[in-house]
Parts: sequence; C-alpha cells; structure tokens
Amino acid sequence: MAAARTDNQVTGIGLLGLGIVGSAVARAVIERHRTEDSSASLKVVAAVVRNTSRPRAVDIDSSIVSTDPKSVIANPEVGIVVELMGGEEPAFDYITTALKAGKHVVTANKEVMCKRGSELLATAAENNVKLFYEASVGGGIPIIGPLMNDLTANRIQSVRAIINGTTNFILTKMANEGADFNDVLSEAQELGYAESDPSADVDGYDALYKISVLARLAYHTEVPVDVIYREGIREVHAKDFRYAKELGFTIKLLAVAQASNETGLLARVHPALISFDVPMASVNGVLNAVEVEGDMVGPLWFQGPGAGPEPTASAVMGDVLRIVKGAPSNGSGTATTQPFEIASMSDHFCQYYIRITVSDQAGVLANVARVLGDADISINSVLQKDTDIENGHADLVIMTHPAREANMQKAVSSINELDSVLRLDNLLRVENYAE
Amino acid sequence: MAAARTDNQVTGIGLLGLGIVGSAVARAVIERHRTEDSSASLKVVAAVVRNTSRPRAVDIDSSIVSTDPKSVIANPEVGIVVELMGGEEPAFDYITTALKAGKHVVTANKEVMCKRGSELLATAAENNVKLFYEASVGGGIPIIGPLMNDLTANRIQSVRAIINGTTNFILTKMANEGADFNDVLSEAQELGYAESDPSADVDGYDALYKISVLARLAYHTEVPVDVIYREGIREVHAKDFRYAKELGFTIKLLAVAQASNETGLLARVHPALISFDVPMASVNGVLNAVEVEGDMVGPLWFQGPGAGPEPTASAVMGDVLRIVKGAPSNGSGTATTQPFEIASMSDHFCQYYIRITVSDQAGVLANVARVLGDADISINSVLQKDTDIENGHADLVIMTHPAREANMQKAVSSINELDSVLRLDNLLRVENYAE
Repeated sequence: MAAARTDNQVTGIGLLGLGIVGSAVARAVIERHRTEDSSASLKVVAAVVRNTSRPRAVDIDSSIVSTDPKSVIANPEVGIVVELMGGEEPAFDYITTALKAGKHVVTANKEVMCKRGSELLATAAENNVKLFYEASVGGGIPIIGPLMNDLTANRIQSVRAIINGTTNFILTKMANEGADFNDVLSEAQELGYAESDPSADVDGYDALYKISVLARLAYHTEVPVDVIYREGIREVHAKDFRYAKELGFTIKLLAVAQASNETGLLARVHPALISFDVPMASVNGVLNAVEVEGDMVGPLWFQGPGAGPEPTASAVMGDVLRIVKGAPSNGSGTATTQPFEIASMSDHFCQYYIRITVSDQAGVLANVARVLGDADISINSVLQKDTDIENGHADLVIMTHPAREANMQKAVSSINELDSVLRLDNLLRVENYAE
Repeated sequence: MAAARTDNQVTGIGLLGLGIVGSAVARAVIERHRTEDSSASLKVVAAVVRNTSRPRAVDIDSSIVSTDPKSVIANPEVGIVVELMGGEEPAFDYITTALKAGKHVVTANKEVMCKRGSELLATAAENNVKLFYEASVGGGIPIIGPLMNDLTANRIQSVRAIINGTTNFILTKMANEGADFNDVLSEAQELGYAESDPSADVDGYDALYKISVLARLAYHTEVPVDVIYREGIREVHAKDFRYAKELGFTIKLLAVAQASNETGLLARVHPALISFDVPMASVNGVLNAVEVEGDMVGPLWFQGPGAGPEPTASAVMGDVLRIVKGAPSNGSGTATTQPFEIASMSDHFCQYYIRITVSDQAGVLANVARVLGDADISINSVLQKDTDIENGHADLVIMTHPAREANMQKAVSSINELDSVLRLDNLLRVENYAE
C-alpha cells in the first residue's frame, strides 16, 4: 500500500490481462503519465497474460510480462492492481488476494462486481484499500462516479438503461432493415460485435450483471442475480418491429431498477416496447445510455460508447488516477439509508403487446378478449395482420391497457388453451414512462 | 476546519443565501442528514439573508438567521460555507474570507467561478481547504465531477453545450410556434423562466460564464471573459427558424470550447444552426445538455434539468457530502499538462447562413456571389423567399460552404455596400459536426 499514494514517486500498476483493453490501459499509462510535471506519475511494472508469446498492441518490456497472477499481486512495486480478466473466478480470488495484500484494485469486471461485489468491497474496507469499478458498467460513460459522488443527496427513483451494445446493435439493425434475429446475429459476429457464443449478451446476462451493480449503488440494496427478472432478445422477430412501429413503438433490451418504499425494489432485464417519443427510442447501434431519476435532481441522462478498448481504458484510468489523488473509499452514498425489500416481477404493472397466430375465423378476438377480461386485463388496441387465406391463419396483435404481470401470465395460459389460437408467439412489455 | 471532517460529529453548514435554492439545501440537510446511522451528519448552523422578516420556504430556527455574512463565516460551528448569493462581489470577498478562515466552500456561483475561479482555487489550496462548484454549471447535471474525476485520462477535444435554460426555452418556443423573440420573452418572463432584466441570459453572459468554467477544467487553461466570443439571441427571428428548417436545421444557443495543439483553444457562445440529425437539435425547453468529446472515451452526452432549486440543491449537497467524505481537492485533472494558446474567432471555420433583404431584380444573386467569391467563400445553396412585389423586395437566404470567420466578416461589409442589398438581416453560424 505504501507504493500507491505518492507525490514525486512512481505508482506501479500491475495489469491482470493484456488483451485489447489491457493494452489500451498500458498505452495510456506509457504515453500520458511519465511527465515529470504531472502529479500522477504512473508506470506499468508487471502484467499477466495467458500466453507470453502472443503479440501485443502495446510496446511493453517482455521482462515484466508473466503468466503468474499471484507473483504480480505480490510484487512490492505494484501499488494498484488492474483486473481485466472478466468472469467470477479466478478474478474473485485474485482481487481478494490483492486487497488483502494492501493493494488497491481497479476492475472492469461486471460479473464479479455483481456476484461478489459486496464481499470484495468489505474486504477492501477491512484492508483500508480502495476498489473502484467504473469501467464495469457503461464502458467510458461516467455512471458509477455520479452515483457514488454527485447524486448522493438524492433518493433514486429509477435507473433505466440500454447497457449492452451487442444487443442494441442487433435490435437497431432489425428495426432499420426488417432483418431477422439470426441473420443480424451472424453479421454482428462477423463484425466482432458479438461473441461466437453470444449467450452472455443476447440472453441478457451482461445487462443483468450491470443493472445489479448500479442497483446496489443507487439503492444500498443487494440485488442478487436470481431476483432479477431476465429475458433475452432471441424471441424478438422482424414482425414484432413491424407491428410495434405501427403502434408507435420500437423495441430495445432494457435493464431497469426501480424502487420506492411502497413497492420495494424491482430489477428486470427484457426486451421492451419504447414509444418513439421518448429519448431511449433513439439510442442506436452500440451506444449505451443510462437514465437516472433522483427525487431532487429529476431525470438525468448519460450516453456514450458502452464498450471498446479505449472507452473502457478511459474509465479504468479515471479510477487509477482517483486512487493516486487520494479519493475516499466509498461503497455508496445515495440518501437511502435502509435497504429496500425485493419486489416480485409478478407485481410489475405495464401495458403488454401480445402477438398470437389465430385461425382466421369469426369470434377469435371475442374469445381472446374474454380470457383477458377474466384476468382483469382490458384491450387498448388490436391489429389483425398477415392473413394467410390458404392456411386460414392470421396474426392477431393486441395492445393491452396496463395490467399486473401475474394476471397476464394467467391470461397467457388461458389464451394458449383456446381452440382458435394456434400459438401465442410473443408477449412483450411496454415500458411505462408516465409521469 | 476542524469541524468539517467528522465521523460521529456534526458538520455545521453556514448558508450565504436562503432564497429558493438555499431553502432547498436547508430542507435537504434537515430531512436527510440527521439520521444517526448516516456517516454524514449535517446541520444548518447559520444562514444569511438580506431581510430577516421575509417568509422562507423552509422551517428554520430564526435565531440562526442573520444579515451578517462575516459573522456566519466566523462562526466556529460552521465547517462548510455554502455560497448561493451569485455575482462577482461581494461573493468573491466572502468566499475568500471563508477559505482563509479554514472553512470549506461550496458554491453555485458561475460568475465568480468564471471571473475569479483560479484565484479562489489557489486560495483554497493555500489554506488546505476545499472549494467545490458542481452547481455552478448545468444545475443538477454531474459535469464538473466527471471532468475532475472520471475523464482525467482523456485529452478533451470539445465541450459543446446547451447550458442556459432561459434561452433554450425561448428558442424552442420560437421553433415550435413560429413566434417572435419579444413575444416569447414576455411569456418566459410571466412564467418566471426569464428575469425582468433578461440580459444575462439572452445576451449570452450566463452561458459564457459556464463555458469558461468548463473550459478551465477540460483544458487546464484560463479562458477569461474577454477572449470568449459572445453573441446573444435577440437577433434570431421567426423567419430564421422557417428558413433554417427548410434547409434541415434548427437554431440553438450553443456554448462551445474546442482545443487542439494545432488550433489552440477557442471558446464561443452564439446562436447556431444545428442539423436535425444531431442530438443537440432535440434538446428542448429548459433542459440543458453537455457533450464532451475525449480522445480515449469518444463522445459523451450529459443531459438534465439545468436549473431550478431542487436540481441545484442536489449538486450543492453532492459537493457538501464529497467534502464530508474527504474527497481530495482537485482543480483539474485531464491529461493535458500545458495550457493551450487562446485562438481567435477570426480563424473559426464553419458554414454560414446569411439572410439578406434585396431588391427583387435580376443580377442581385450574382453580385452577392461575386462578393462572397472575392472573399474565398463559395455558396452551398440559395433560397429566395417572401417576395414583396409591391415594394420590390425579397429575402435572399444563402447557405455557404465552410469558410473562415475573418473572410466572412470582410464579405459582410462588402455585401452591405451593394446597391441591390437593402440590408443584411442576419448572419448565423452552422455548427460543424463533421467527424
């Protein structure tokens, strides 16, 4: 720890990971923080890689590169460990080891900060060192800093985000080109915007980790993975964009955490219909956006590149320099003092978009309307589309008035049992922006 | 100073000003920071008003209210002085006195931070106390915090902002309703969105103070009032919105600071034509938005309520709690180490919109085009509008290709001397968002 706070001294950085983000961090340190007049004099003194023979996107002395994380952490020249490996283990083990060895840690790892963040923050506090993680959510967008420092007098009412660039890229393409999910996913994979195993992104896990991290900060409440509602984008079809557009909406993968003393705290990740009138509808491509509503400040909007080596390195370096300047450790700060109860998704209340393949015969709508009515759900509008005369099918698209999730799930079962219903193709929630 | 950093102790707040913002701060302190389990235990221990008999929007013990700022500053119970008086003097005097007395200061005063900010920050450093001023720019939007802390590894390329709610309210109304400036100004005054003397807002002074404060932080460079180009919105007419719209633009009062080693640093406040395609065009009403472009992070966007007692109090309280938590003093932090040269507006390079009342006769456009050509300015497009056959007048609206400001000013003189030109009604700059 002695090495970390310096004035005319060098702070040694140990990098766990020297891929594209690690190389960008190393470049920033090398190019920007060797000047004598800078109060922040930094130096990369050790780096861990999986394979020392692989070429790197940064000119770094090969003698400081190794494959042994523990030796980097133990290196007495290392004052700040920068963890860029990702995943829960072994990252958790290495971060814990570093904190216990009196090293400050900066991480870009949303998964470990979601699943084990409170343990790690407690370990940092016990060892009187800092653990900062701005880069774990929203890439280069300052969002953790504002929640930790700038908005601390507020009771946060909602955090709503488009926080996964891969899915936003895919959904934007689907919206603009009428393309199908699988085609756009292949294209995103070719462009390097999606992994060969795309599950972390398209099934919503990445967004879930991030909203959990933001919710902990905003609400002083642990929001474990298994209490967050999660639904990915694989079931969103080109048709849904077409029909949603006719109704005045686009479709985005939203991550939301809302809390009040009355309702408790609900966190959810799912594709949502968003009215073209609200700004979230215009966040396109790989952009990320986070909307935070505080009771004093009102609605705030943060937007920028949510991923990429340089934006991520910007956030990592911001945290490194924060430590060098002596920023206080600070788990959280908003005006809430008591953790919230976790609310159930069953109590979520919103409008629903339902797409059903029905037999094209009289009385179908009446049957569906009756089933919805039995569950206390009333209909706002109906489209009948793509009538297939040969096979006697049609698409029935229903927009409901606001209803309770539990009631809707009951209605869904009953709709599926109707003779005239061939299948309920999709059920999507409409994001409620009512004041 | 001993009173300011506490754990189980109360930090005393002295309020210089108990108007609508001061009352909102006092309410926040009273409602939110008396809890025993909060690490931040705050108390308003003294407040200064002009008139002690006036009713207040907060329930505060009248025995702590006085008309004497010096006694509040000297009060040994006061650890943090919150300055909400505005203006250069006597605010500068009071802040200096407080800092020299070892008190931390939080201010919402853009004018004093623009004109005397570097002196005040130096005084704070000399006395080992903190001076924070998040509320001075953008109301509740965290923008100074991100520049001080989160973006410190970046070389900032541009800061572009809609940063004055009053003028944005007026221009938005003019755009939506085709109304004239004076009518909308009167309406804004009735609604309380504009002062009875509107000059600080509509002539661009408020925006100028704010962009100067942001430029100091972003570029480590003093940008005094007299080197910032300033032009208000009084000369923007309903007609200009009509013609701009035909060309694909709206009109906003922008405050911009851009810098590079090649060009130096140019700060400017003026109405600008903004393409409907860029997000700034959609920032409407009293909203504020700040776009920051950093070389690592890329373009970031911050948006929210730029004024109002509660948003301003949110920013003030964020700074107060920052001090209580022990945040480091930090004048600036971005990766620039040398101040920039100040550039001249004469070298600014952009497209121009020119509206001219001409005699409706052959050869007029040729004459104007010749004069522009002589100044090395070529024409992108031309509209002839509102031909008044009776009087033989017409509006000639010219959009140029990008040109140098000095050349344009030369051309303007020559255009005014043409026989066929009755008057050059307006010259507006087009904001250049080229990548």
